[in-house]
Amino acid sequence: MSPRCYYETIGDDLGSNLRVVMVATRNPLNLGAAARAMANFGFSRLRVVKPYDVAFREARSAVGAAPLLKAAEEFPAVADAVGDCRLVVGTTSVGHRELQHSIRRLEYGARLIRAALAKGPVALLFGSEKFGLSNEDLSHCHWLMRIPTVSADLSMNLGQAVALCLYELARDPKAAAARPGKIQAASAAETEQVTALLLDALRRSGYVNPRIAASTEEKVRRLVRRLSLSARDAPVLLGMLRQILWKLD
Amino acid sequence: MSPRCYYETIGDDLGSNLRVVMVATRNPLNLGAAARAMANFGFSRLRVVKPYDVAFREARSAVGAAPLLKAAEEFPAVADAVGDCRLVVGTTSVGHRELQHSIRRLEYGARLIRAALAKGPVALLFGSEKFGLSNEDLSHCHWLMRIPTVSADLSMNLGQAVALCLYELARDPKAAAARPGKIQAASAAETEQVTALLLDALRRSGYVNPRIAASTEEKVRRLVRRLSLSARDAPVLLGMLRQILWKLD
Repeated sequence: MSPRCYYETIGDDLGSNLRVVMVATRNPLNLGAAARAMANFGFSRLRVVKPYDVAFREARSAVGAAPLLKAAEEFPAVADAVGDCRLVVGTTSVGHRELQHSIRRLEYGARLIRAALAKGPVALLFGSEKFGLSNEDLSHCHWLMRIPTVSADLSMNLGQAVALCLYELARDPKAAAARPGKIQAASAAETEQVTALLLDALRRSGYVNPRIAASTEEKVRRLVRRLSLSARDAPVLLGMLRQILWKLD
Repeated sequence: MSPRCYYETIGDDLGSNLRVVMVATRNPLNLGAAARAMANFGFSRLRVVKPYDVAFREARSAVGAAPLLKAAEEFPAVADAVGDCRLVVGTTSVGHRELQHSIRRLEYGARLIRAALAKGPVALLFGSEKFGLSNEDLSHCHWLMRIPTVSADLSMNLGQAVALCLYELARDPKAAAARPGKIQAASAAETEQVTALLLDALRRSGYVNPRIAASTEEKVRRLVRRLSLSARDAPVLLGMLRQILWKLD
C-alpha cells in the first residue's frame, strides 16, 4: 500500500489491526462501498467469507476498484476469517432474531473496539444484505454491535452500515468541542469605517431624520456589529459604499 | 406520516425541522439511500433540486420506496428549496475548490446544527455525485461541513455521506459512556458449583496430581472465575459436567 497521511482519523497501528469481514455479501456495489469507506477512514484489511462469486469478481474488476478491494482475502468460513483476532464483534440490526449475545450500541461498542485494537487484531463482521449474520456466524462473536435507529424494524443499507461503524471507530470526540479555523473577523476600526460610510450614505439619501440622528447612528452601529464582518469582506463593503457615495453626490 | 417512536435518535421536533436538500443528484440509488438514512435517524423532510428527471422518477417509483421519498418536494433552484430555513449548511469533501466559507468538521458542525434545529428550520445540502455543490449553490450557505477522512482526495459515496451526517446529528454523546444492559453474571455460588464439578471430573480422569492437588484446585478456581460465566450459561455447564461425571463412573 502507498504511504498515507492519517492526519485526522484513526492511527496507523489501530487501523491496520482491524479486519473488516464481509460475510456472504450479494451486491458488488456494497463490497465497493465497504472498501471505499475503509480507505476513507484509515482501515486496510478487508476479508470476505463465502462471497457470491459473481459479485466478488465484479467488485474486484470494477474500473477504479480500490487497491484495498484487490488485496481482499477470501475465506471459506467465518472461523478461518477471524482466526488471528483477539476480539470478534458482529453487527446487527436487532429485532428479528433471538439474540444470545450482549448487544452494544455503536457509540459504546466502538470505544471498546478502539481499546482492543491497541492490543491486537479485531474482527468486525457484516452479514448479507438480506439476512444479516446467521446464528452460526454470530456464535463466533464475543458480542454484537448495533447502529441506533428510530425503529428496530428499519433496515440499514449495508454500505451505509459499514461506513457508520468505521466512522464511529475513527471519530475523534475532541473534534466535537474544538472550534476549527474560523474566518478572521474584521477589526473594530474596519467595522467602524463601514459604519461611517454607511451612515454617510444614509444621511445623503435622506434616510436619517435629523431630529433623531444620534439614535439612528447608534442603531446603525449596532446593526453593523451584528453582521460580524470578516476581514475579507470589510474592504469589499467599503468599496461598494464609496461607489454609492460617489453616485449620490 | 405514520406515528413513530423516536426512542433513541433525534427528537421529533428537531427531526422535523431539518430539510435534507439533494442538489442535482444523478443516481436514483443515492436518492433511495438518502431517504432510507433519513427514516433510520428520524428525519422526514426531503427536498430535491434540479434532479435528473429519470433518476428522480425511478427512485420514487421503486418497489418499496420510502413514503418519505414519495413525499419529497421538488424545486427548480437552491434559493427556493432553502427559502424557509434559518440556517443553510452545505456539505463538501474539500480540497478541489477555492472555498470562501468557514468549514466545520462534522462532529462540531452537527452540534451547531442541532442547536439551530431547536430554534427553526435548517437546510443541509448535498451536491451531485460527480461535482458536489457548485459555487452558486455554495453561495446560499452560511457555512460548510465536511466529513473527516484520511485524505481530502478520497471521495465519499453520496449515500454514505448522507448517512454519516444524519447519524452524527442524531448521535447521543451520552451513549458512548453509558453501559447498556449487560448479560447477568452467574452468582458466586453457581460459579463455585461449576468449579466443584469440574474438579471432580478432573480428579476422576486422572488430571490432578494428588501431591499438588491443593495448588491445582486453586488454579482451576481462578481459571473458572476468569471465564466470567453468565447466569444463563452456568446451568448449561453444570449439565455438561454432570453428564461427563456420569460417564466417567
